[in-house]
Amino acid sequence: MINKLVDKIKKTEAPIVVGLDPTMKFVPEHIQKKAYAEYGETMKGAAEAIWQYNKAIVDSIYDLIPAVKPQIAMYEQFGIEGLIAFQKTVDYCKQKDLVVIGDVKRGDIGSTSEAYAVGHLGQVKVGGTMCRGFDEDFVTVNPYLGSDGVRPFIKVCQEEKKGIFVLVKTSNPSSGELQDRMVRTSEEDGGQGAGRPIYEIVGEQVAAWGAECMGESYSYIGAVVGATYPEQGRILRDIMPKAYILVPGYGAQGGKGADLVHFFDRDGLGAIVNSSRGIIAAYQQEQYAKYGAENFADASRAAVLAMKEDIAQALAGRA
Amino acid sequence: MINKLVDKIKKTEAPIVVGLDPTMKFVPEHIQKKAYAEYGETMKGAAEAIWQYNKAIVDSIYDLIPAVKPQIAMYEQFGIEGLIAFQKTVDYCKQKDLVVIGDVKRGDIGSTSEAYAVGHLGQVKVGGTMCRGFDEDFVTVNPYLGSDGVRPFIKVCQEEKKGIFVLVKTSNPSSGELQDRMVRTSEEDGGQGAGRPIYEIVGEQVAAWGAECMGESYSYIGAVVGATYPEQGRILRDIMPKAYILVPGYGAQGGKGADLVHFFDRDGLGAIVNSSRGIIAAYQQEQYAKYGAENFADASRAAVLAMKEDIAQALAGRA
Repeated sequence: MINKLVDKIKKTEAPIVVGLDPTMKFVPEHIQKKAYAEYGETMKGAAEAIWQYNKAIVDSIYDLIPAVKPQIAMYEQFGIEGLIAFQKTVDYCKQKDLVVIGDVKRGDIGSTSEAYAVGHLGQVKVGGTMCRGFDEDFVTVNPYLGSDGVRPFIKVCQEEKKGIFVLVKTSNPSSGELQDRMVRTSEEDGGQGAGRPIYEIVGEQVAAWGAECMGESYSYIGAVVGATYPEQGRILRDIMPKAYILVPGYGAQGGKGADLVHFFDRDGLGAIVNSSRGIIAAYQQEQYAKYGAENFADASRAAVLAMKEDIAQALAGRA
Repeated sequence: MINKLVDKIKKTEAPIVVGLDPTMKFVPEHIQKKAYAEYGETMKGAAEAIWQYNKAIVDSIYDLIPAVKPQIAMYEQFGIEGLIAFQKTVDYCKQKDLVVIGDVKRGDIGSTSEAYAVGHLGQVKVGGTMCRGFDEDFVTVNPYLGSDGVRPFIKVCQEEKKGIFVLVKTSNPSSGELQDRMVRTSEEDGGQGAGRPIYEIVGEQVAAWGAECMGESYSYIGAVVGATYPEQGRILRDIMPKAYILVPGYGAQGGKGADLVHFFDRDGLGAIVNSSRGIIAAYQQEQYAKYGAENFADASRAAVLAMKEDIAQALAGRA
């Protein structure tokens, strides 16, 4: 699946993943109204609204991009009905030949991570039959519980030729509270050395795990590093030379094209940049207001093209 | 809800939470067969089997215990149908007046954690109507993204009088890879001090967050500390004097009654110990084999009583 992702990035010339994170305030009123008229102001109505919203955006942009990243929390907030909309979105994007990165940030003790891994990437045994659950192509994984919480995902990735992105340095303002903590690097130095941040330690683990799951040029095991931390991106690019980096935080969270260059290899591969509300709610921005709420999906298409250009310029302009 | 939990622990004299983690290999064959006969070897069949299994166990033990802790991964592995069984389990346990701790280990950037928080503990706005999703009483939260990933949960806890347990020191073998890392404690000491482990830093955050959400004697903001790490439990008990500690790892993971005493306050409160397969799959253990698979729920009841006795003896026997 990492090979497919790389191929699609080359073909579209767009190292871009669109975050399908349908907060209700992004969903145009006419879509909400129609859904509520049919199903009431219920979880089912909400789920119908976000599904119709997603579908229109995907139809408008699927030929421009290699991948989408639905954030499961935005569906889970609407309970079972929301998760049905998540499943429909995953299935529909796969039909459109998009690579689907489930942004689920799961992670637990070994036996429990195994359940998440088979439920999202693999197959589960029911009696004598193997069944598939959510069946994304990649998922994001939280490493706080250590390697026995990550290894079950790696095992399923090897079986299924799918992949994960491990949270290394997240894009949010407080990510440094734990991830930037300077730790003693060895028992031998007795804590006298300058130390290294947690995110570097996790980055090294990602590189080691990734060596066990190599695709053609990159590993199935990638990393999440926020666009909002370009200097850390530069360091982590070196620590994890074979890991694809999923870069959230572009656009609405503050990351700009110029911040992204360090995440990429010299050939323009090695990183894929996420934008969520910058694309899916483009019609709410001044720049795209001319499209109006009725044509929100056209605004999203224009925003994808602008993002593609912004990244291409930044990569072309680097020293 | 923390007050209700403490009251129920006092009333039942059982600081015990039963982990409803229905791995299919625990579910007796006669229950699986019946479910597959009705729904086939499908996700729906699997979901029916785990729901019937849970229901029988809850019916058998609900009067003995204050709380249950369904591990959502064990349901999520069966996709949407599995999550419907999760929802049914949560609802049924609440009908039985059990406190329900959703072991979801969610955690993300701020706006996304907000979606998880409203979806699991609070209410979400659909048009002009407020709707409830999974509606557990407590959930577990992963702190790797820092305080802006935890604060949205705290906000919902304040509104709803519900609670969270933040992962501080997990019970699994590799939890130390990140959680035990010794970090520089201040910029001033230039890394020359002995340092402190990450779990202490997180424990201090839990104590600080908890001060904003006090119940009668304990805070709505608790912590997860594994039974497999009793020394760390002693330290964390002191760091977080008002936090209830949810203690996984008893039984199958290796923790014993005697390991638990440091997690408790002198009055026997302050901690609640989880057992999952030790209770729900008791009938598969030699000790309870006499019950047979047909009477698996009676075996679970016997195992709860034995666990209650084990903890009571350990607490009575401490110096």
